[in-house]
Amino acid sequence: MTPFSPVTPAVLQQLEEIVGAGNVSVTEADRRLHAQDMSRFAPRLAEVVVWPETAVQIAAVLALANEHHIPVTPWGAGSSLEGHPIPWFGGISLSTERMTAVLALHTDDFQVTVQPGIGYKDLNAHLARYGLFFPPDPGANATIGGMLANNAAGIRTVKYGATKDNVLRMEVALADGRLIHVGSRSIKQSAGYDLLHLFVGSEGTLGVVTEATLKLTPIPELMSAVMASFPAIGPAIDAVVAVRGSGLDVAALEFVDAQTAVLLARENGLDLPAQPTLLMEFHAAHAETIHLGLETVHEICAEFGATRIHTTADPTERQRLWNARHHTYETWVRARPDVQWLVTDVAVPISAYPQLIARAEGLLAAHDLAGFMIGHAGDGNMHVTVGFRNEEEEVQANEVNKELVLKAIALGGTCTGEHGVGVGKVPYLRQEHGAAMDVMRSLKHTLDPNGILNPGKVFETAVSP
Amino acid sequence: MTPFSPVTPAVLQQLEEIVGAGNVSVTEADRRLHAQDMSRFAPRLAEVVVWPETAVQIAAVLALANEHHIPVTPWGAGSSLEGHPIPWFGGISLSTERMTAVLALHTDDFQVTVQPGIGYKDLNAHLARYGLFFPPDPGANATIGGMLANNAAGIRTVKYGATKDNVLRMEVALADGRLIHVGSRSIKQSAGYDLLHLFVGSEGTLGVVTEATLKLTPIPELMSAVMASFPAIGPAIDAVVAVRGSGLDVAALEFVDAQTAVLLARENGLDLPAQPTLLMEFHAAHAETIHLGLETVHEICAEFGATRIHTTADPTERQRLWNARHHTYETWVRARPDVQWLVTDVAVPISAYPQLIARAEGLLAAHDLAGFMIGHAGDGNMHVTVGFRNEEEEVQANEVNKELVLKAIALGGTCTGEHGVGVGKVPYLRQEHGAAMDVMRSLKHTLDPNGILNPGKVFETAVSP
Repeated sequence: MTPFSPVTPAVLQQLEEIVGAGNVSVTEADRRLHAQDMSRFAPRLAEVVVWPETAVQIAAVLALANEHHIPVTPWGAGSSLEGHPIPWFGGISLSTERMTAVLALHTDDFQVTVQPGIGYKDLNAHLARYGLFFPPDPGANATIGGMLANNAAGIRTVKYGATKDNVLRMEVALADGRLIHVGSRSIKQSAGYDLLHLFVGSEGTLGVVTEATLKLTPIPELMSAVMASFPAIGPAIDAVVAVRGSGLDVAALEFVDAQTAVLLARENGLDLPAQPTLLMEFHAAHAETIHLGLETVHEICAEFGATRIHTTADPTERQRLWNARHHTYETWVRARPDVQWLVTDVAVPISAYPQLIARAEGLLAAHDLAGFMIGHAGDGNMHVTVGFRNEEEEVQANEVNKELVLKAIALGGTCTGEHGVGVGKVPYLRQEHGAAMDVMRSLKHTLDPNGILNPGKVFETAVSP
Repeated sequence: MTPFSPVTPAVLQQLEEIVGAGNVSVTEADRRLHAQDMSRFAPRLAEVVVWPETAVQIAAVLALANEHHIPVTPWGAGSSLEGHPIPWFGGISLSTERMTAVLALHTDDFQVTVQPGIGYKDLNAHLARYGLFFPPDPGANATIGGMLANNAAGIRTVKYGATKDNVLRMEVALADGRLIHVGSRSIKQSAGYDLLHLFVGSEGTLGVVTEATLKLTPIPELMSAVMASFPAIGPAIDAVVAVRGSGLDVAALEFVDAQTAVLLARENGLDLPAQPTLLMEFHAAHAETIHLGLETVHEICAEFGATRIHTTADPTERQRLWNARHHTYETWVRARPDVQWLVTDVAVPISAYPQLIARAEGLLAAHDLAGFMIGHAGDGNMHVTVGFRNEEEEVQANEVNKELVLKAIALGGTCTGEHGVGVGKVPYLRQEHGAAMDVMRSLKHTLDPNGILNPGKVFETAVSP
């Protein structure tokens, strides 16, 4: 059935020669640890797990696998929500867990060069002493390699951009074992094709990132937070548009629905009424700027009928707010132990956000499912999270996901704003991209003619035409 | 010699059927008008100029040309500095001059959808009434299609990014006549390969942009400007790094050398001493923010030994400053009617800027050539502009360009920060990209197997392997 070849004892021996015997394992325990991410997809076992320590080793593993038609699935932290690191066709799980070095820090250039296995939270802890940080913040301690492969984003993307906007240069191992460099440490570059962004977000299906130079940002001197509650979703989204148009350069602009506001009030002690609420953050170099910004935001929210507006520049209170927001999903999991959750990830042009939310409310009601909505409203990205208690409800939850995706695409949006395609969004790409999917497929075939790189992801079939 | 076929009477007739007889010309006058850009390269004549009016017409022209192996060179405004729109192998000059429509304005989404032939200055004039603008500003009234093809940038790139950072979605005609859509009107998208950025900057060699949805920015409420002069280049660049690290979010951060400061003082009445000078701009929503920002900048510049610091929030004075900066090249042309100028375009990580400048000074002295330096210091992008008066000096000027490029690449930079490859930077791409050039070439071959799209640009040979 599978178009691939098995990992033979001879191949195992060659893998050991490449990465060292201590960096190869066929034990069931190790294979189980690399079989499943945080998605709803069932685990699948690789035949072998390898932990290369250098770019050259990664390239050599790929060349070997390519020669023998063995699939290779890269592994970072296993925090994906769409099945990316699951070894769908067995073969080799290529873990970057032993490549966590900070290779160079260029403070004057606001750049750092790292190996792909370092977690972004660990990186930021390292960078804090220099007053710098890497802004994308997907939540779990994802690796930089995983974030690049997936174009991860997060709460502060509205100001700082997604991972694709915060990387300058990468070293990439190709399927045939070539190592290439893409991008430049120069911020500006118009020299030929933008291969950097072709590999970012390609989910390990075109190559494996072996090293990356990231763009850093000075840690803001001052931050402030705002919580604004509205009688309905419509005026809340009107306020989002007005804040974005105000020139205030908001650093986070999050939406939580009324029931999530209730939950965060109860579980985290946030002072929130049972209403749709916007959570915002602003960064500035001066206290007066913060103060004036808060005044403007207050005016905008009041203009759109906010029933309650709370602003704060107090670090502890702000931290509490964002901790609560970052852990909303886990809070829901604890609050409703009777259900499992399906996290959706559609995004639309901001003007279509109310229509998307209305559709989500309608779908949850029609299918009689529990569900809550939190989203990066400033980006038009919405995570409708659908609860299910049994197989029948799971089918319904998947139906809600599908209908939401189709609605988002119809509204000019996307099936995935930041979680990536993986396995879960494969069925929707043709709907979203049309004939451009044929171009993606021909690029895949050009760079990975044997289809060994993370098969089962992005495309419907394992091997290119 | 050429691997292409001529435009026969039968092909001409088919072109007339596609775009209409009034949109096809073989007159020498029209061919001369599409033979040369603003670069130093000699004109070359297309066999025919066509002016399609729709995306479908562009696609049909490409399909026809592909079938007959006729080269197609897109034409925007002819403002390129590296020869992009010159029909290097004759064939068809595909002008977008009759595709200048604004197709849709999405004010709530801060987006506009346009045809490729509209000039960015004309677009911004149209957008002003809505309080919005498209930030990249290459100077000449380049078309949006040309800016996308070339990933054009400009003075405000340090804050707003290059063209690639300000486009969300495009319709692209491929060599075989397929029309595809790439990107999304959703700000966030992690759904498959980033084809958008593969086509941006590909200089018409992978496809022709037929429509684009651009990201807009609210016009800032308030702007202020700073001119700071330093006794030497080193401390000026130290100040650049400090300003970038201050969290002030500078909107323009330009460097002019001492002799250009003298020129701008004399010709534009700017109050500048004969010293290396930084020109800066800041945008904000509140007067107090502007005021505080100027105070901080003043402190930073003083700390690094600035001999003169002039700050202003007066719109007229600010406008005068940026007009002077925008027309520096033309001012030099008028001031030195005895010389022609070769504009270079290297960029490096900002920490390497002083080394780059030192190399440029050394090269100009060694070759005994006139030259001046202006640059987007905040981006590490430098335009050393080299004067020559005869063929012998032109050879020397080209040598300076070559040595500068090699130095920039050695410093971790690029042969072109914003002018693109065109014809002029073709010899340096292998040096900059190494084996990644093979990947670019295989992508070119995949998407344009007959090599009809803008041959002679980006790659050394006209047709892919």
